[in-house]
Amino acid sequence: MRQKEPRITLVGAGPGDPDLITLKGLKALQTADVVLYDALVGDAMLDHVPAGAVKIYVGKRSGEHAYAQETINKLMVDYALNYGHVVRLKGGDPFVFGRGFEELEFAAAHQIPAAVVPGISSSIAVAGLQQIPVTHRGMSESFWVVTGTTAAGALSADIYDAARSNATVVVLMGLKKLEEIAAVFTAEGKHDLPVAIIQDGSTKNERIVTAPVSRICAAARSEQVKAPAVLIFGEVVSLHASFKPLQQLYAGVAEK
Amino acid sequence: MRQKEPRITLVGAGPGDPDLITLKGLKALQTADVVLYDALVGDAMLDHVPAGAVKIYVGKRSGEHAYAQETINKLMVDYALNYGHVVRLKGGDPFVFGRGFEELEFAAAHQIPAAVVPGISSSIAVAGLQQIPVTHRGMSESFWVVTGTTAAGALSADIYDAARSNATVVVLMGLKKLEEIAAVFTAEGKHDLPVAIIQDGSTKNERIVTAPVSRICAAARSEQVKAPAVLIFGEVVSLHASFKPLQQLYAGVAEK
Repeated sequence: MRQKEPRITLVGAGPGDPDLITLKGLKALQTADVVLYDALVGDAMLDHVPAGAVKIYVGKRSGEHAYAQETINKLMVDYALNYGHVVRLKGGDPFVFGRGFEELEFAAAHQIPAAVVPGISSSIAVAGLQQIPVTHRGMSESFWVVTGTTAAGALSADIYDAARSNATVVVLMGLKKLEEIAAVFTAEGKHDLPVAIIQDGSTKNERIVTAPVSRICAAARSEQVKAPAVLIFGEVVSLHASFKPLQQLYAGVAEK
Repeated sequence: MRQKEPRITLVGAGPGDPDLITLKGLKALQTADVVLYDALVGDAMLDHVPAGAVKIYVGKRSGEHAYAQETINKLMVDYALNYGHVVRLKGGDPFVFGRGFEELEFAAAHQIPAAVVPGISSSIAVAGLQQIPVTHRGMSESFWVVTGTTAAGALSADIYDAARSNATVVVLMGLKKLEEIAAVFTAEGKHDLPVAIIQDGSTKNERIVTAPVSRICAAARSEQVKAPAVLIFGEVVSLHASFKPLQQLYAGVAEK
């Protein structure tokens, strides 16, 4: 048997709905000899992989890694050298807090050609599927995507700048730090800024909780919101159907 | 013939490569009675539309609109009422400077059900396809996406805040204002910050120009870069293969 050329394709799987992979990503899966896939990847997506291919779950979600990044890098390269085409199937987009570039560097250090297929990022799409636009004329001219969980475990310094800005602020992997993040917005005087928390976006378990900054922690507790979740801070959240009754309720309370 | 139920689906077509549409978007196209499509949508994508469907080019790219937004809204609703399922096929993602929410509002005002299928946004993917990660550990904990062309025609105030931040700054529809934008970064002391301009990202005409802020305008002129183009300001641009020789060149010049 002719030895297959080793190669690696990083593929963004999107936010969870298996139909949110791209055609290009699908074609990569269909020619995979090995697939290394993340926790947030929908199972149905693996149906596109050839029957003989090796499928390996490598885990990875906030605070719960089945394998360390170094192990994933090594598996990726070893499998490429021994089996041919490795698809590294990553939740969301490979370069949005996905450590995709570290995988590219590791591949390059081993002279293995690597390609990238972008994925639907939950930073834009999870809000969008709830019909909350990250930008909207007269309301938001930009959006700023920040991680809630930095390498060091601390709150990103960028959160402080983002809370001061006029951008729609999207925080990924931030649910555990919701109280800290809400406190940062409160310190900027943004008690009334609308917030949405969307759990399991794009899947059948999807849920949304909306409230102003001042009430979002209580709302998340009483609704028992769980990770994975996307946080959206911005006036654009007021466009969501669930926020309008809230505004009327609070206006009513204020009048009394 | 039974009257078809009117409905509208906003579908993100991605940055240009027809294989960067999602499976979900593809399925929407396959059930379309009418498709209203933008300038930046790849022709090959229309091959997925049923033979009998009506296909209408409604233009729209920076500064050159085949139809006004109001006209597009009306066409969308009129066709849904008369033909059934209208797919509004939009470049990139419907909610990233796409005026998608205005279309949803117009549909809602006419009691026509509307769904959204997210698209690959050039704000993340055009850099990613060049293997420039918008985030990278130890280098960038966030990215900020800003429009270069606001409704009023002025530079967005958010550009000034973004230039001050540590975020990777991505500017869409900003090529015409490159000199102004570079001046904003220069005023923040960021002469040496790496910049990439990527023209026609994801298509066969794709080109990239990289340079520090101080030289990017000259580089764009000498390379005759044209719209559509994505601008990326950030240390992550230094990870691109084209930037390393530049760094060595400038280091060599500085030594003399």
